[in-house]
Amino acid sequence: MASLLRLPSLLAPAAARPAALLRHRGRCLHTSPARLCPAATAAGASSAAPVKMETRGGDREGQVTPRSTDFNAWYTDVIDAAELADYGPVRGTMVIRPYGYAIWEAIQDYLNVKFKETGHSNMYFPQFIPYSFIEKEASHVQGFSPELAVVTIGGGKELEEKLVVRPTSETIVNHMFTKWIQSYRDLPLMINQWANVTRWEMRTKPFIRTLEFLWQEGHTAHATLEEAEKEAMQMIDVYTKFAYEQAAIPVIPGRKSRVETFAGADRTYTIEAMMGDKKALQAGTSHNLGQNFSRAFETQFMDENGQLEHVWQTSWAISTRFVGGIIMTHGDDAGLMLPPRIAPIQVVIVPIWKKGDEKGVVMEAVASVQNTLKEAGIRVKMDDSELRTPGWKFNFYEMKGVPIRIELGPRDVKNRSVVLCRRDVPGKQGKEFGISMEPSILVDHIKGRLEEIQASLLQKAITFRDSNIVDVNSYGELKEVISEGKWARGPWSASDADELKVKEETSATIRCFPFDQPEGAKKCFMTGNPADEVAIFAKSY
Amino acid sequence: MASLLRLPSLLAPAAARPAALLRHRGRCLHTSPARLCPAATAAGASSAAPVKMETRGGDREGQVTPRSTDFNAWYTDVIDAAELADYGPVRGTMVIRPYGYAIWEAIQDYLNVKFKETGHSNMYFPQFIPYSFIEKEASHVQGFSPELAVVTIGGGKELEEKLVVRPTSETIVNHMFTKWIQSYRDLPLMINQWANVTRWEMRTKPFIRTLEFLWQEGHTAHATLEEAEKEAMQMIDVYTKFAYEQAAIPVIPGRKSRVETFAGADRTYTIEAMMGDKKALQAGTSHNLGQNFSRAFETQFMDENGQLEHVWQTSWAISTRFVGGIIMTHGDDAGLMLPPRIAPIQVVIVPIWKKGDEKGVVMEAVASVQNTLKEAGIRVKMDDSELRTPGWKFNFYEMKGVPIRIELGPRDVKNRSVVLCRRDVPGKQGKEFGISMEPSILVDHIKGRLEEIQASLLQKAITFRDSNIVDVNSYGELKEVISEGKWARGPWSASDADELKVKEETSATIRCFPFDQPEGAKKCFMTGNPADEVAIFAKSY
Repeated sequence: MASLLRLPSLLAPAAARPAALLRHRGRCLHTSPARLCPAATAAGASSAAPVKMETRGGDREGQVTPRSTDFNAWYTDVIDAAELADYGPVRGTMVIRPYGYAIWEAIQDYLNVKFKETGHSNMYFPQFIPYSFIEKEASHVQGFSPELAVVTIGGGKELEEKLVVRPTSETIVNHMFTKWIQSYRDLPLMINQWANVTRWEMRTKPFIRTLEFLWQEGHTAHATLEEAEKEAMQMIDVYTKFAYEQAAIPVIPGRKSRVETFAGADRTYTIEAMMGDKKALQAGTSHNLGQNFSRAFETQFMDENGQLEHVWQTSWAISTRFVGGIIMTHGDDAGLMLPPRIAPIQVVIVPIWKKGDEKGVVMEAVASVQNTLKEAGIRVKMDDSELRTPGWKFNFYEMKGVPIRIELGPRDVKNRSVVLCRRDVPGKQGKEFGISMEPSILVDHIKGRLEEIQASLLQKAITFRDSNIVDVNSYGELKEVISEGKWARGPWSASDADELKVKEETSATIRCFPFDQPEGAKKCFMTGNPADEVAIFAKSY
Repeated sequence: MASLLRLPSLLAPAAARPAALLRHRGRCLHTSPARLCPAATAAGASSAAPVKMETRGGDREGQVTPRSTDFNAWYTDVIDAAELADYGPVRGTMVIRPYGYAIWEAIQDYLNVKFKETGHSNMYFPQFIPYSFIEKEASHVQGFSPELAVVTIGGGKELEEKLVVRPTSETIVNHMFTKWIQSYRDLPLMINQWANVTRWEMRTKPFIRTLEFLWQEGHTAHATLEEAEKEAMQMIDVYTKFAYEQAAIPVIPGRKSRVETFAGADRTYTIEAMMGDKKALQAGTSHNLGQNFSRAFETQFMDENGQLEHVWQTSWAISTRFVGGIIMTHGDDAGLMLPPRIAPIQVVIVPIWKKGDEKGVVMEAVASVQNTLKEAGIRVKMDDSELRTPGWKFNFYEMKGVPIRIELGPRDVKNRSVVLCRRDVPGKQGKEFGISMEPSILVDHIKGRLEEIQASLLQKAITFRDSNIVDVNSYGELKEVISEGKWARGPWSASDADELKVKEETSATIRCFPFDQPEGAKKCFMTGNPADEVAIFAKSY
């Protein structure tokens, strides 16, 4: 517990501002306070000397692997250092810590409103499903049975029928829909639930693939195929809009290939996102289930002509995986970088004072600025802890991806102004001095900057995405593009077997047939046959 | 599916307004639309004759048992008819339907804000807990092991260590707290999670006791016993305030007896509510866990003097059971009666028109009124379905407990006024004619009425509660009071064995030692020894 990490102290000369100091060194100091222990306190850190990048005898705690060195290590390091999640005691499980959960809440808050606006009601289905239900829909059982967690003991007794812990709820939803739906007047039935689901994954990764995860699952029943199709498309649009406008992730919406279609669906629509390592992430899906489940569960309705018909259905979901997508889209070596609209903290205020008699005036100004921003509806946090130095805080909130930092010291108070730092623009370029404290000016300025950051993150991600998608016209070209780690887009009308061959030989799969299709005649790059569509191939999470 | 239920038609003479007609008959027509099928449509119901209370050949569907006849049957009938919940396919499980879930959302919305205001952060722990964790705290395992659901198969394989589906999360929380807490600077650690939990109950009842239920569980760790005690008290206060001010349930807050204390707690605080049948419902609890879990899980921190100490903890929870409490506190023979502050629909507007040419003007006025109320922040629903008669709707929304109904017909349009009906005041007394449509007048009037209803429901419940709590000074008196179905309050300092004897002989348990204690010297009614406190005894759910 000795003071191994030396941090700039509150007594450092004003010229050598801790932020500037730290900016020009690596990002090794990013670390979670709980891990740092007494070392990094104001009392314990008394040296103003340049920061030394030490680690605890080979222990990597307190360090974040550079993104360029090892993307996967960087990812898990950031999750740890930004306190997003931790590993649960059972293999493959994850504890979502408050800061990670707050990002999920931001996702929920937005989508929950959109779901209600589009006519859906929230409800809740039990998570225990009789094993026999899973077996009713043939492709569904094939898809899910290897991943099931099964309850065999209840109240101390062996159960007569084993219970599946829901991997998804189509079966139990249909069981209930069959009870509730009799007439065309009961349609459409449009519901959603926010819930935990369990899939016994062998290779797990925090947020991206965990044994248990949180999601929303929408389930709807309609009188016609057309209505169901319209609903499935509507919901993939809601997801697309969310990804672009809130998460600043320029996903590519499209249709899955037959091979990649959800177990039990006729059609699966998806939004595919390009992560910082260029791998694809399936970030949300919407399924047109046709009558597959309604036939398996006899979910029928009397139509207007007195005919008994099976309902047409959809289901659609976004999960905590999306949080992983946000980390891997925007993060950099300094840690997380959050789009303002979903950032739990949009602005952090760090007070800076050296002498005791400065504290009063600084804190008074800080409180006033905090209040101004709060009243303007900006999510602001003020960190006045005296256990940490300003420099430590700068790094910590950069690691947490807070879009804007406000620094406020005695000189700023005198000038009635603040210093503003953008998370997304490194170094001096991201710093603005002398921004007036005058509420109307400050609020407008910050709101403008937040919008700029939001737009800038999206634009950066679009540029990155577009520079890493390459059009291909032969299998050879595809192989080359994929081996460079990029996405390949080319005309495709080949067989499922060909698709599986590509996967086997290149590890790339069809991510989707994008909705946005080039015009003109196309020939399948694999077979030379005419092709209606281009497909996007990529390695994926 | 023949037209067995005769409903007043849209063609009924204006004088015989359906509402009035129905008011003077029983409440047998309350039923869910999905159950009614084609019978109750405007097309199908053409008779304006007095309503006949028929049932479908012995089938009780569409009927609600009068509350006074059979409280339990009434309760489940209301849950069905108001579409609050349904039975899941696995014994003891419950599907929470949209309207029931919306009440839970209202509870969540209020409490979630209060939890954050009092310094707690939301997060999420995995639901699978290694079996060995449960065994670490002696009284905890004793309390929960008979109720566990156990996963023994994952991914097709027998698991090496069985996994418990969380019945509550103290053990896994402490496992993680041990990882996160090192120093006094990491304290207090105050978190909450909204989650599902599983307890293998043998005797279940919708909302009140189900195999799986939804709840929030708060967990905190502190440096001192005093802080933990303060926190436990703070949270029972939050619950008390919520019950009184939002749910209009005059709970009695107090301390549980040793016998009734949570398995693993030093002290349990509770809020006890009196249901319409005078049985008690434990509606929320807050536990001072002392160091029981921190000792079992070695959750320690370095204090300011460098001493290693075990943390002091609390946990506290409110569950979907509370929805059951709301039903059983306020409901009557006509169904649910919801306090305006937690009612998903505060005002329902029912348009009334007979001739086709009236429809236009009525619907225009209805839309305008709806808009006015919506903009004023009132949760309003307009039911313009032409598949149901106004009379059917009146009954249906009474069943759903909507606090205020607005009726709007051609005559009202002419007078620029509406008819208002209070759910909580039956018959003519609850009806107001000629309330101006003028937005400012109407909004103020309705807001005032909603506040009146809120206050009136609470006052009614307080009167009912207070008239059913009887002070006792001997065991004989207690027996008599309990046999009358009432609550008995008397001085108590007897043994745990005596408490268990009371339970065995009367079925009543100590609900709590209320915080609100009478002054003066007291003698235990059982032993005659001096007693510091009175306890409340009652039969309970």
